[in-house]
Amino acid sequence: MSEEIIIVSGTNRKAAMSYQISLTYQQLLKDLGVKSTIIDLMLLPDDFSFSALYEHSGKNDAFNKYREMMLNGKKFVFVVPEYNGSFPGVLKTFIDGLEFPNTFTNKKCALVGVSSGIQGAGLALSHLTDIFHYCGMNVLAQKPKLSHIDDNFENGEVINELYMTLLKDQAQKLVEF
Amino acid sequence: MSEEIIIVSGTNRKAAMSYQISLTYQQLLKDLGVKSTIIDLMLLPDDFSFSALYEHSGKNDAFNKYREMMLNGKKFVFVVPEYNGSFPGVLKTFIDGLEFPNTFTNKKCALVGVSSGIQGAGLALSHLTDIFHYCGMNVLAQKPKLSHIDDNFENGEVINELYMTLLKDQAQKLVEF
Amino acid sequence: MSEEIIIVSGTNRKAAMSYQISLTYQQLLKDLGVKSTIIDLMLLPDDFSFSALYEHSGKNDAFNKYREMMLNGKKFVFVVPEYNGSFPGVLKTFIDGLEFPNTFTNKKCALVGVSSGIQGAGLALSHLTDIFHYCGMNVLAQKPKLSHIDDNFENGEVINELYMTLLKDQAQKLVEF
Amino acid sequence: MSEEIIIVSGTNRKAAMSYQISLTYQQLLKDLGVKSTIIDLMLLPDDFSFSALYEHSGKNDAFNKYREMMLNGKKFVFVVPEYNGSFPGVLKTFIDGLEFPNTFTNKKCALVGVSSGIQGAGLALSHLTDIFHYCGMNVLAQKPKLSHIDDNFENGEVINELYMTLLKDQAQKLVEF
Repeated sequence: MSEEIIIVSGTNRKAAMSYQISLTYQQLLKDLGVKSTIIDLMLLPDDFSFSALYEHSGKNDAFNKYREMMLNGKKFVFVVPEYNGSFPGVLKTFIDGLEFPNTFTNKKCALVGVSSGIQGAGLALSHLTDIFHYCGMNVLAQKPKLSHIDDNFENGEVINELYMTLLKDQAQKLVEF
Repeated sequence: MSEEIIIVSGTNRKAAMSYQISLTYQQLLKDLGVKSTIIDLMLLPDDFSFSALYEHSGKNDAFNKYREMMLNGKKFVFVVPEYNGSFPGVLKTFIDGLEFPNTFTNKKCALVGVSSGIQGAGLALSHLTDIFHYCGMNVLAQKPKLSHIDDNFENGEVINELYMTLLKDQAQKLVEF
Repeated sequence: MSEEIIIVSGTNRKAAMSYQISLTYQQLLKDLGVKSTIIDLMLLPDDFSFSALYEHSGKNDAFNKYREMMLNGKKFVFVVPEYNGSFPGVLKTFIDGLEFPNTFTNKKCALVGVSSGIQGAGLALSHLTDIFHYCGMNVLAQKPKLSHIDDNFENGEVINELYMTLLKDQAQKLVEF
Repeated sequence: MSEEIIIVSGTNRKAAMSYQISLTYQQLLKDLGVKSTIIDLMLLPDDFSFSALYEHSGKNDAFNKYREMMLNGKKFVFVVPEYNGSFPGVLKTFIDGLEFPNTFTNKKCALVGVSSGIQGAGLALSHLTDIFHYCGMNVLAQKPKLSHIDDNFENGEVINELYMTLLKDQAQKLVEF
């Protein structure tokens, strides 16, 4: 039986493109016979930056649900939109609220960048790689950068063939990683 | 009359070392005849990650107080603790909630790294530099990295002479920047 | 009288696009009434990686010509092509052969990225910024990323209006920096 | 029979500490029953930056020896000294002279940072990770940063126990990677 992969939609913005791409990724994994669950940061408790970190670490039940999922996961996909030249702050705060280092050490992940502009969140993915390597998690070299996403997504589907090829190739590599 | 500098204490952790270093920096600026104000991220509304971003951008009065201060500022100091190999997520979320690009474009800042470990938040400062350059703000080259801060701070004072020299030199350069 | 700016064409590849962009930049500076000199890394001694570094540092006359120019310069432009996801090794070796830290400390520079692909050398510029900040040189926040350069350069001219606007704006800012 | 690992001593400086650490690493691999070969960049042809790149790519016999070794390798260790806040230019030029992308795509590597100062080449390792990920090579998350190396190496041996533990752990993980 195949292991389950956790897909993190890396923003708490409503109706985010990252969530749409997370759904696309889930389907790609399903096509490969691999189960996955999406964690949508939009569903985190509104005050988690204050109520689930530091002295409150591990004490917020609503947040702990996701904390447990991350702790039990073995492989992750992070779908990362570009905000101000890097990843959304809320994604890093989410990471800051997880159990360290057991959530990440010796685990594996794949990163996908998404942007409305031209960069495809390239620097965001570089920054996140630094963070995950610091946490002891291996990051797949292949990191698709989906730039100009608004022109390349329609009716719930990525309509850019190259993007789909890159995502499929990455999903396959993650399964084998 | 000297302009006023805004010092951002880059975490919402209670009794944070970053806040202590911010106080030290404020005194250094005072010694140079420069006024400053500290923004302590601990005082942000608990739910600002949700209530002050995206469609709520600019609509949260409690957050707007800081948004206005940042918009009106010309020079900034960011005191940045190392969390998980980079800066705290809450600092980036704070940036994500500010008016873009007017808060930062053609302004100037200095960065100070703080860590309990050996790295002094080096990667955090590199990541933040990428972000501020993206936002069009110049970053002073000199970025003191205060590693092993717990061994080098006592009774409200930085007791490491090299650290104090680096901070004074940076403060002087920021005033002239 | 205006100060002179040194433009470094960041590769030793023959007939490099970076050299063409350096010529464009020189003209932009001339239009602003500012003199400049181009250092073309193609003209470095073939064996400088071995004959002008470490125990031979400062002892290679052919290299010293450029070493002196860099030491005497106050402001620089680096035109940086993307090789293997970063800057060309030869550009870093050139830097490694210069007098440290006097060549760079408290000086100022602007960076321009050039690529045949989509990234515009974004990571290269981030890496170089880390290096120059380490050396104590301020880097202008605005760093044009000229992607798909082959489609945007014709008969010795950058034919993309946005690129020209970005370069002119950067040149103006560098003069005032 | 175990596969062979290639260790790249990442500088062309004579009597480099990186070479000494490469020898240490070779012994660690031997203890794990794994063969390895060291490529010492000091042995590259003096003019390889000019004679083995671009239109001369693959045409320099003296360089091609190493080019072939890299092309045939499956796993690599890069021992990376810190020069000017990043890796030595010559290491990147070496990479620029290799066959792209077959030398690296879908291969695996481990990075070790070495510095006389406090940083342990942290930014160098981050920059190199960006480069290798661009080239499609997976990089082991664990990257020991051997700071203050002169105080921690004596009579051909790393005398810092923590450093040895980190290197052994990394070597073991690379074998299983």
